[in-house]
Amino acid sequence: MPGTDDATKAITAAAVDSFADTPDPRLRELLQGLVLHLHDYVRELRPTIQEWEYAVDYLTAVGQKCDPTRQEFILLSDVLGVSMLVETVNEQGGGTESTVLGPFHVVESPERESGDNIDLMGTGTPCVVSLRVTSADGGPLTGASVDVWQCTEDGFYDVQQPDVQPLGNGRGLFRTDDEGRVWFRTVVPSHYPIPTDGPVGALLGATGRHPYRPAHIHFIVEADGHRPLTTHIFVADGPYLDSDAVFAVKESLVVDFAQVDDEDRAREYQVTAPFRLADFDITVEPATDEDAR
Amino acid sequence: MPGTDDATKAITAAAVDSFADTPDPRLRELLQGLVLHLHDYVRELRPTIQEWEYAVDYLTAVGQKCDPTRQEFILLSDVLGVSMLVETVNEQGGGTESTVLGPFHVVESPERESGDNIDLMGTGTPCVVSLRVTSADGGPLTGASVDVWQCTEDGFYDVQQPDVQPLGNGRGLFRTDDEGRVWFRTVVPSHYPIPTDGPVGALLGATGRHPYRPAHIHFIVEADGHRPLTTHIFVADGPYLDSDAVFAVKESLVVDFAQVDDEDRAREYQVTAPFRLADFDITVEPATDEDAR
Repeated sequence: MPGTDDATKAITAAAVDSFADTPDPRLRELLQGLVLHLHDYVRELRPTIQEWEYAVDYLTAVGQKCDPTRQEFILLSDVLGVSMLVETVNEQGGGTESTVLGPFHVVESPERESGDNIDLMGTGTPCVVSLRVTSADGGPLTGASVDVWQCTEDGFYDVQQPDVQPLGNGRGLFRTDDEGRVWFRTVVPSHYPIPTDGPVGALLGATGRHPYRPAHIHFIVEADGHRPLTTHIFVADGPYLDSDAVFAVKESLVVDFAQVDDEDRAREYQVTAPFRLADFDITVEPATDEDAR
Repeated sequence: MPGTDDATKAITAAAVDSFADTPDPRLRELLQGLVLHLHDYVRELRPTIQEWEYAVDYLTAVGQKCDPTRQEFILLSDVLGVSMLVETVNEQGGGTESTVLGPFHVVESPERESGDNIDLMGTGTPCVVSLRVTSADGGPLTGASVDVWQCTEDGFYDVQQPDVQPLGNGRGLFRTDDEGRVWFRTVVPSHYPIPTDGPVGALLGATGRHPYRPAHIHFIVEADGHRPLTTHIFVADGPYLDSDAVFAVKESLVVDFAQVDDEDRAREYQVTAPFRLADFDITVEPATDEDAR
């Protein structure tokens, strides 16, 4: 019987069965699960042929918008809450909370030394970020890498403004010292809209959603024998903390970027007062056997 | 609590809620359902960050493989059984069964007259296809359009071999006569592999699936006041009828391409004996109010 539940379930069974001989058991599991969930969606929502064609065209446009510095599929995953969910199901608890990678980790960060200024533009509110990386037991982690990237005071990453910003502006790859510490100079990042000139922007427009993310600085922290951590810190007094377009805000990651007027402390950090100071401790979890798979 | 079911369900609720103000209620329903099903998949299969990154890269590659004559996302939908499922949930029963559009309906078929030969190459087993289009009550439909496309005896569509086949080879847009009839000359199509030089081919390779489709001829039939029908007929004596890579075979669409040795009948159809003759009746359903949405 065409269109009945029996007819549709026969198609699902055949598609699931087609992957039965997949040599890699994890790939088999991921694909058979994908077929089951996609088919449930189709059975429940019953997209018309025209809606299916629209979806095909939409996904094609998302793929074609991607280039070496633009990742529209990550953006789509982000605005559907999928990126944040994947981060969250992979947390083990105990360490600093993780959050989404986002679409702008697309070029290698230049190696920098503690104290360096990652702001190459000279415009914006001077800011010092001071981090301390420890293991779950509280012991400092020496030589951990801390990859940093952020936007300017105007809300753009270097790769979005190749004619305005030098590549590497707002980026740096640091290593922690004997006390697990690293600090750097920068400017306070702005809240900003995710790129809206592509299919994801069209989706937000059609659904009445704003494209803004609250101001933040990204980190990837990697230390020997520990799970890599991808996270941000958010500027505590900025807008959109309660309606991030990509659902990435966690309470524990909202950090006070305190104003410092003291001239001596400014000199200590090689900036001029007043400046903003963000102090944040990062804890990474020891690696487990499962991480090696 | 990071990673717990409560934490993941809060993300899902926020993502569903973000679409609450979508002006178009159908778009809202499709997107909120998509979020729910995608999130269920992530919660159940728990992809690692690396697996998620692989999926992003894979979907990007699928999109970038597409061009005006190559539709890799339709191919992906096809091999996951999604295309066939969408066709099936949209059937109302009563008419000829539908099946997938496939990725090769990418150029306009040239207008042709009944009796024309759509084979412009002159190689292959001569074949006549004779169709009769009726409404659900059995009455013949005059002036219905019948869009035809098929591969050569070697298993390639015109757009796959731009240096070998003239564009329009194996394609034709016909209209039915006063009796609802249309016939055309062609060659018997071959079974063939779906294109394997892209990400979908890599997926089939990694999962031990063969890429073959049984031999078939595609039709889209459109008649005033009736639902458009997208279907194929399959050559009854060919291989892969029971393991079509895209799950599109339906028993009612398998047609005997009978050998005819009679010289008189060959002359009647302007071919030379022996030739193959496929006779197929197509019934389309009257349009419903729902079709207009």
